[in-house]
Amino acid sequence: MADLLLYHAHTACTRVTLTALEATGEAYEDRMLDFRAGENRRPDYLALSPGGKVPCLLANGEHLTENVAILRWLHAEYPDAGLFPPAADAWDEAQQMSALSWIASGWHPSVRAVKVPFLWTKSDTGPVRERGEELVTALCDQLDSDLEQRRWWFGNDWSIVDTYLWWAYTNSEFGGFDLSLWRYIARHRADHEALPQLRRALAREDAAHEKMEAARA
Amino acid sequence: MADLLLYHAHTACTRVTLTALEATGEAYEDRMLDFRAGENRRPDYLALSPGGKVPCLLANGEHLTENVAILRWLHAEYPDAGLFPPAADAWDEAQQMSALSWIASGWHPSVRAVKVPFLWTKSDTGPVRERGEELVTALCDQLDSDLEQRRWWFGNDWSIVDTYLWWAYTNSEFGGFDLSLWRYIARHRADHEALPQLRRALAREDAAHEKMEAARA
Repeated sequence: MADLLLYHAHTACTRVTLTALEATGEAYEDRMLDFRAGENRRPDYLALSPGGKVPCLLANGEHLTENVAILRWLHAEYPDAGLFPPAADAWDEAQQMSALSWIASGWHPSVRAVKVPFLWTKSDTGPVRERGEELVTALCDQLDSDLEQRRWWFGNDWSIVDTYLWWAYTNSEFGGFDLSLWRYIARHRADHEALPQLRRALAREDAAHEKMEAARA
Repeated sequence: MADLLLYHAHTACTRVTLTALEATGEAYEDRMLDFRAGENRRPDYLALSPGGKVPCLLANGEHLTENVAILRWLHAEYPDAGLFPPAADAWDEAQQMSALSWIASGWHPSVRAVKVPFLWTKSDTGPVRERGEELVTALCDQLDSDLEQRRWWFGNDWSIVDTYLWWAYTNSEFGGFDLSLWRYIARHRADHEALPQLRRALAREDAAHEKMEAARA
């Protein structure tokens, strides 16, 4: 049993990592970084995560960055948590990796264009946000058509890929993106938001956020 | 031994996949898609790669997308190719995944802002390209400082992570980004460009490109 500490941020994709940790049932610590106060650019944190990004997981004092890698490691360490379905062979595992990578490199940068378009431009954010809407719309069309066929990404059971997808589409709403057009995404969202591991993860994030706000005040 | 076919595109991150295939020593077919002619948006290709993206690898007729997943599968299938160093445990494997994911989700979208900034905006590309330069500069600073410590990403030996990094920094040059400031990146580049598996991969890409141009003419 590892000694676990997760560095996270408010509304960031660390919601996925928190949900994975909650699914394992293991004890862990979490520390929310105050990006506005530059806590993620401090030398001690940059030594753990050179780009100043979250998530960063410490396990027995050693650090690991990138959700894709952290989620796969948690799955290897806690196989009973159901983070991924059982894989028959390396090809099955590769398909699981492909889904994760699609969200991390396909959805994430496009959601950023909608939610925080200033990260992609030195000037007006409007045209970047508008382009982000096009990109996220195409991704939602693709996802909705998949979710018409099956309730969860891998079929009958939840996996952490569902949480990562949920994070991606709901985060686009922070930029005002309207999700109401997609009916199977709406069903997936309702199913997902009822999960106890998600409720616990969001409660954990809320508590950390309140603590951070209090420290700032 | 699988029956392999790679769908790729000119100067795309499929340079990395081609290099991995060359490192395995296995026979494979490759097919370059003409993006300008919309070949990647045709229904038969969208059935393999729903976003119309490359790489897509067919192995015995089944498809797999996303470089991160394809490279890990090739490593599992051809462990003697040296695509990754031997991993002692799941934590070691996770660190390898973390490096791959960092390039796919950290570098790739930022390089896109420099090379093809119109993909991130509906208006002037200048401010997006300028922002891309800032992002790629920060990544090059980070990489250069790592490469000062070790010749290849994992130490003494080449791995496919080096090829992915090489692809990321050299692709930024297509947008006019000047790489000359970073001395250890320059050394890494020279070492990398001498590798026979890369030379063969680029020759393969050149041949496919000539064929595509001839078909277009």
